[in-house]
Amino acid sequence: MSHKIMAINAGSSSLKFQLLEMPQGRLLCQGLIERIGMAEAQVTLKTPEQKWQETQRIADHREAVTLLLEKLISHQIIASLQDIDGVGHRVAHGGETFRDSALVNDHTLAEIERLAELAPLHNPVNLLGINVFRQLLPATPSVAVFDTAFHQTLDESAYIYPLPWRYYAEMGIRRYGFHGTSHKYVSATLAEKLGVPLSALRVVVCHLGNGSSLCAIKEGRSVNTSMGFTPLSGVMMGTRSGDIDPSILPWIAQREGKTPQEINQLLNGESGLLGVSGVSHDYRDVEQAADAGNPRAALALTLFAERIRATIGSYIMQMGGLDALIFTGGIGENSARARAAICRDLQFLGLKVDEEKNQHNATFIQDDNSVVKVAVINTNEELTIARDVMRIALNETA
Amino acid sequence: MSHKIMAINAGSSSLKFQLLEMPQGRLLCQGLIERIGMAEAQVTLKTPEQKWQETQRIADHREAVTLLLEKLISHQIIASLQDIDGVGHRVAHGGETFRDSALVNDHTLAEIERLAELAPLHNPVNLLGINVFRQLLPATPSVAVFDTAFHQTLDESAYIYPLPWRYYAEMGIRRYGFHGTSHKYVSATLAEKLGVPLSALRVVVCHLGNGSSLCAIKEGRSVNTSMGFTPLSGVMMGTRSGDIDPSILPWIAQREGKTPQEINQLLNGESGLLGVSGVSHDYRDVEQAADAGNPRAALALTLFAERIRATIGSYIMQMGGLDALIFTGGIGENSARARAAICRDLQFLGLKVDEEKNQHNATFIQDDNSVVKVAVINTNEELTIARDVMRIALNETA
Repeated sequence: MSHKIMAINAGSSSLKFQLLEMPQGRLLCQGLIERIGMAEAQVTLKTPEQKWQETQRIADHREAVTLLLEKLISHQIIASLQDIDGVGHRVAHGGETFRDSALVNDHTLAEIERLAELAPLHNPVNLLGINVFRQLLPATPSVAVFDTAFHQTLDESAYIYPLPWRYYAEMGIRRYGFHGTSHKYVSATLAEKLGVPLSALRVVVCHLGNGSSLCAIKEGRSVNTSMGFTPLSGVMMGTRSGDIDPSILPWIAQREGKTPQEINQLLNGESGLLGVSGVSHDYRDVEQAADAGNPRAALALTLFAERIRATIGSYIMQMGGLDALIFTGGIGENSARARAAICRDLQFLGLKVDEEKNQHNATFIQDDNSVVKVAVINTNEELTIARDVMRIALNETA
Repeated sequence: MSHKIMAINAGSSSLKFQLLEMPQGRLLCQGLIERIGMAEAQVTLKTPEQKWQETQRIADHREAVTLLLEKLISHQIIASLQDIDGVGHRVAHGGETFRDSALVNDHTLAEIERLAELAPLHNPVNLLGINVFRQLLPATPSVAVFDTAFHQTLDESAYIYPLPWRYYAEMGIRRYGFHGTSHKYVSATLAEKLGVPLSALRVVVCHLGNGSSLCAIKEGRSVNTSMGFTPLSGVMMGTRSGDIDPSILPWIAQREGKTPQEINQLLNGESGLLGVSGVSHDYRDVEQAADAGNPRAALALTLFAERIRATIGSYIMQMGGLDALIFTGGIGENSARARAAICRDLQFLGLKVDEEKNQHNATFIQDDNSVVKVAVINTNEELTIARDVMRIALNETA
């Protein structure tokens, strides 16, 4: 029997969703409500056949969800609200509480709220999304899917920072990692495509988008990941610095009289590809500028690749080798140039990319003689969310 | 013809020296003056045959150097001040100005002073040491030997941080690296011992002491190093955190109302082995505690090794392989346990340590079947300084 499952990603002024028919994973409808709280909020709905777009005032998330549900009925995508069998919500931070997605109940809600301390920008709005759906669909079970849960398998030696112990024990400062839903999905998909159990593979996933993170997967579990306590750390990103000498922060704070908030904004919003190139946070724009001869744009692309290569190298040390490298995310799925720069001169690891396959974004882009597989896999967080709703709320494996 | 060369390391309240006969590198005398500026300063002098120690009031560095020179004569180590043919001074920061050691002249002094901005705790006191010797030995040439110079060969992509460009262009924030004298010395010594030119080897040096840094050397030049803008960054150290998610700093600053200086002190003085173990900053103490069953001490040792392994992995990616790994510094030279933990399970790289050779701190500790050489080499910064004095001030190669 098939089920209609909603996958929800609530932002501070936006709501992204997909309605999927499970277990087939067939996309019934997807959409986005943007600029919630403003006079000219925008609603976009798309089925495989049709697209609707309109602008109207939407006061808050409750109004946004109400409108969305009305439109699903009026466009005859569903007959009634009872057609929705379950709702899955992306939640940023599950702390050390959630090692897996969780059925939404009072305990789950209280924990998400408590963990807002660790994700003050995201958990409260994720929680708001969950609560609005619970009010409007009180009989429909829902599941919280945490960005951090997949990485709860990290060993202590991979998640503890060399700080005074109280910062971990009392304040929970440790590596959590993010993008877990994506890392989990693409690694599982790779194993399927190879016809090999994931537990038999040593995999590094490069999720490269506006936010980028890498994940080392061994024996089927995440053993390391490049984002840490927050999504700032790790590799270089569109506007985020990734890891730098920590001393730079107090140095700049003193020199320029910046507050901690301003330092945060500097490292999260003005650094990365944007900061080095001076051109754009968008990899495609930086590529164009580099092609036009801008040396800082070229340097930004080199830095981007080198920092990813360094991280891959550290994971190979940890896993004792590498069987497959996966590229996903906006840049990972679409930029042959980024993949080529990351994979250059790795014959000594038994890894070589076939440049023609790479140019065509083929699923497998390694050379026929490459021992290490190199895959390009489109991530699908919504499908992972829907699968978790099936498994956890409906007790059906998808 | 042989020369007597002084190698000087001036600290804020200390002066360390060696008097070497060059080019033989024979140690004539070494010593340490501690607690300069205090009532009970301590003077220690040692020749291969004898040792003197005394306590007295020493007002400042000028008095310390005067006393030192008097004692060298009164103990008949030299006949007169004219016997000293050259003086070499360790200087912390040479910025982008100094790619090599430099003859001390007005230009050199002005640059060291200007670069004090980047090393406010060290360059001024190094400068003081140079000036005192110049006053007391006005006819004797001297050479400044920079901790950073060896790393000036790094490519842009290894030294630029993904920050807004102005921080590099206007403030000089970039990776400089430190311990250059040590990395240079032990890598040159390795090449000698192997009878292979350094330019033919891909080497990683692990200088592990109270401060620790790694260096990747390819084609005879430093291509990467783990310390960065300051000596805080890179691997975990005795009391320093090394690299952590930069967001942790503003988070703690806000939460605990800490100033930038306090944050600096926290990361430089209370973290690392000390912070995680809660026992000591000293690797030997942490080893003992781990053996006695302290789980946080055991974790600190694991973290220490894992962060070094990760860095080695990143350098292997950059160099396209590894021919030799060198251990030096107090921990690197003496802890078989640290070396074993760092080298475990690296057969996939063709690297295997012979545990018996390792236990005996042999010069080469790799297994007979190991493709990668693993060396334990005692560092000798004073000898490198004296060689640079010979080369630069006396135009003689040592």
